[in-house]
Amino acid sequence: MMRFTTNQDIKSLSARLSEETITSRELTEAYLQRIDIFNPKLGAVTELNQKSALLQAESIDLARKSGVPLGRLAGIPVLIKDLYHVDGYTTTAGSRLDISGLLPPVEGPFVKQLRQAGCIFLGKTRTTEFAMGGFNFAHTMPWNPADLAIKRMTGGSSHGSAVAMASDLCGFSIGSDTGGSVRQPAAFTGVAGLKVRRDFWSTKGVFPLSSTLDSLGLFAKSARDLHFIFEELESQRTQLKEDPGFLSQRSVRLALPTNHFFDHCTPEVQTAFNNCVSALQRNGFEVVPIEIPEAGEIDPVFGELVPAEALAFIGLDRFKAARDVIDPIVWQRASVAFESSAVSYLRTLRRFHEIIELVRQRLRHFDGWISPTVPATAPLASSVTSVEEAAMFNRINTSNVRPGNLFDHCGISIPIIEPASNLPAGFQLMSGSLSEHELLNLSCRVERVFKENRLSYSVEPIQSP
Amino acid sequence: MMRFTTNQDIKSLSARLSEETITSRELTEAYLQRIDIFNPKLGAVTELNQKSALLQAESIDLARKSGVPLGRLAGIPVLIKDLYHVDGYTTTAGSRLDISGLLPPVEGPFVKQLRQAGCIFLGKTRTTEFAMGGFNFAHTMPWNPADLAIKRMTGGSSHGSAVAMASDLCGFSIGSDTGGSVRQPAAFTGVAGLKVRRDFWSTKGVFPLSSTLDSLGLFAKSARDLHFIFEELESQRTQLKEDPGFLSQRSVRLALPTNHFFDHCTPEVQTAFNNCVSALQRNGFEVVPIEIPEAGEIDPVFGELVPAEALAFIGLDRFKAARDVIDPIVWQRASVAFESSAVSYLRTLRRFHEIIELVRQRLRHFDGWISPTVPATAPLASSVTSVEEAAMFNRINTSNVRPGNLFDHCGISIPIIEPASNLPAGFQLMSGSLSEHELLNLSCRVERVFKENRLSYSVEPIQSP
Repeated sequence: MMRFTTNQDIKSLSARLSEETITSRELTEAYLQRIDIFNPKLGAVTELNQKSALLQAESIDLARKSGVPLGRLAGIPVLIKDLYHVDGYTTTAGSRLDISGLLPPVEGPFVKQLRQAGCIFLGKTRTTEFAMGGFNFAHTMPWNPADLAIKRMTGGSSHGSAVAMASDLCGFSIGSDTGGSVRQPAAFTGVAGLKVRRDFWSTKGVFPLSSTLDSLGLFAKSARDLHFIFEELESQRTQLKEDPGFLSQRSVRLALPTNHFFDHCTPEVQTAFNNCVSALQRNGFEVVPIEIPEAGEIDPVFGELVPAEALAFIGLDRFKAARDVIDPIVWQRASVAFESSAVSYLRTLRRFHEIIELVRQRLRHFDGWISPTVPATAPLASSVTSVEEAAMFNRINTSNVRPGNLFDHCGISIPIIEPASNLPAGFQLMSGSLSEHELLNLSCRVERVFKENRLSYSVEPIQSP
Repeated sequence: MMRFTTNQDIKSLSARLSEETITSRELTEAYLQRIDIFNPKLGAVTELNQKSALLQAESIDLARKSGVPLGRLAGIPVLIKDLYHVDGYTTTAGSRLDISGLLPPVEGPFVKQLRQAGCIFLGKTRTTEFAMGGFNFAHTMPWNPADLAIKRMTGGSSHGSAVAMASDLCGFSIGSDTGGSVRQPAAFTGVAGLKVRRDFWSTKGVFPLSSTLDSLGLFAKSARDLHFIFEELESQRTQLKEDPGFLSQRSVRLALPTNHFFDHCTPEVQTAFNNCVSALQRNGFEVVPIEIPEAGEIDPVFGELVPAEALAFIGLDRFKAARDVIDPIVWQRASVAFESSAVSYLRTLRRFHEIIELVRQRLRHFDGWISPTVPATAPLASSVTSVEEAAMFNRINTSNVRPGNLFDHCGISIPIIEPASNLPAGFQLMSGSLSEHELLNLSCRVERVFKENRLSYSVEPIQSP
């Protein structure tokens, strides 16, 4: 019945829209149909507004027919993490706590940027409560589509957007990344995830977890798609200052940390990552081992800043009064802030800024640094049965992504395959010296090498029976 | 023996230097001589570097003779509050505690700006310990030159710079203002004091009291002098965007708070202030009574932010271990941070930013707001004999200046006379809508009205016997 498949790269989808071989309304209907069929199992989408989405799509189609000049994302349906205020939707921040009144009901600059680009808002996606961590007991966690037979972890907190992307429920999806919340679920589900620097896209209009560490991010099928989406979004607001060298063959120098990032790696992920590094080296990328001792400071910085800033936003009294409805994992992690001292908080905040500067100095002669995004492929969902196991799962599986937030770098997780299990893993490329735009250009080159060497993971979206 | 008197307005001093009727070396020697004679009584200057000052002055003189184009502050000797790092001087921040290693020994942008303007660094001036409050027991407080017969309070914390200015020990002097530390001692000693907005001049290179509330400031004999100095300093780094209206007769609309600012006023200061307001009204200034309820929030905001931020910089262990050498007033005020919670600190910080926005909205149709700077003329130094009396003195005498920091406004204290006692008081003019430059232009107009109406206080610098 459908004249097309949604499972195309974003550039092709965009081309079909602008050639008018499909309409945005058809595309929106196709995604809504997929959500209708698959979301009951996947649990990625938490709120839909079909009517409003179809109206938006029709208005784009009408504008196109009338010859209005449209950007290349116009008519592309997106799903947005349920931390963002979007007009016509409720923001729950994944909580059963009544948080109305906390976040001003005004769309932030990033949602406006999506709107101006002509993106269609399909709906909201699942987040762990307050975006804290990768697993909750209080909700059913989404199903990782990398394995439809047995339920595996998706990581978090933007797991709804990651799963929606991996199962082709939208053109692309929106997340946020305070301690790896885009890159980690991207790696576990086999899609590409971009995290920008803290100040690059304003976090205004997004329910804050940590006012210091929060940053925004995107999911797409590949680095190439992320690059396309990013270019289109940014072309509205800035003259992109492209370093043309990255598109050609300028030599690239990447740091490979010798400490911290391999402490928890499985041999299989280590091997998959090593094969990627070898392929890059064969293709002229310089990879230089270097110690980054500051990575070891993630635990004290996240432990001090995140709970205090989260509870300062939610309010101590409101939080304490809601013990019964707060997820026990979130309760345990956040409640350490009951005892946090202001002086200790401030000293940690200062250390955070020192670390940014130390790492900038340390890596100033590099284009970026690389590591596995996650130390293992997605564990079984049943492997976590207690608050303690959840804390351990979180600690181990954020150990490689949190340093990127600690250093305030932009970065990407590129999906790679772990061939022993055929499950996805992630190749993390982070940078403090490149702009987001340059990083994405470089990521396209890196991804091309992986594809040519069959090291890439490509999602095969769940199909109708 | 001296061919000139130092007691001139800054424009005349500058003119004499550029006409070469005096040299910078002569001027520097004259101030050094005055410091030598009067500082034993005044206690304003804490460190001198005569040799370096004379060398600097000679190099300016030489440059002038060689025809090097110089700015209009070139060769003017300045004194700097002992919170600023200045090469060749020790920074003690008014403390007997060893604070070496805390402040990086690098001159901040503002000291560099003074250097680039060709100012001569005469020495450092007294501050209360860590710039906290207006009175210490641990040091001898400076003598307020407004009354040479009996020792009166100077206020603080920049009292060394205020007293030096009021007794003509330098061309102008530098302070800092976290909760009125420029404006309050300016009012008590009868000079003009400028406080800029927090981010206008970087506080880098200045020992921080409160990283949130700190701002820099200047002392001069009059608003007119401040305007001259400011223009010269800023002409180096910015194109001043002057609103020419302020120089002519554009109508000016000032808010007169009806709450908070008169709670502690003596009838004499109230009358002096009222006379100033009447004179302004007779001269076409519109003065509109308005309530500013946010002013009432100074105590919780200062109480929560200042001690925690101060101790976070100094270090809790270092501070606690130094109980014997810390001034007891400072100890009492800062030690509340031992118990401060991070969540409560962060909520107060958020409230601070909300207040800035609320007041911006409330006063958006005004050019600024006015009040007495201090509620009384300088009390006798002997009136404070205990830690509790010091806390009360501080609370009452900062009640009108702290709101300016709470709102992040720029502002000035213009010296006015309290005719019953012949002692100085201050007319405070603050603004959130004008730039520093516009505020100073407006201040010159206001001051001119006061002078024409004999409402101004003019320092009569202490003379050699």
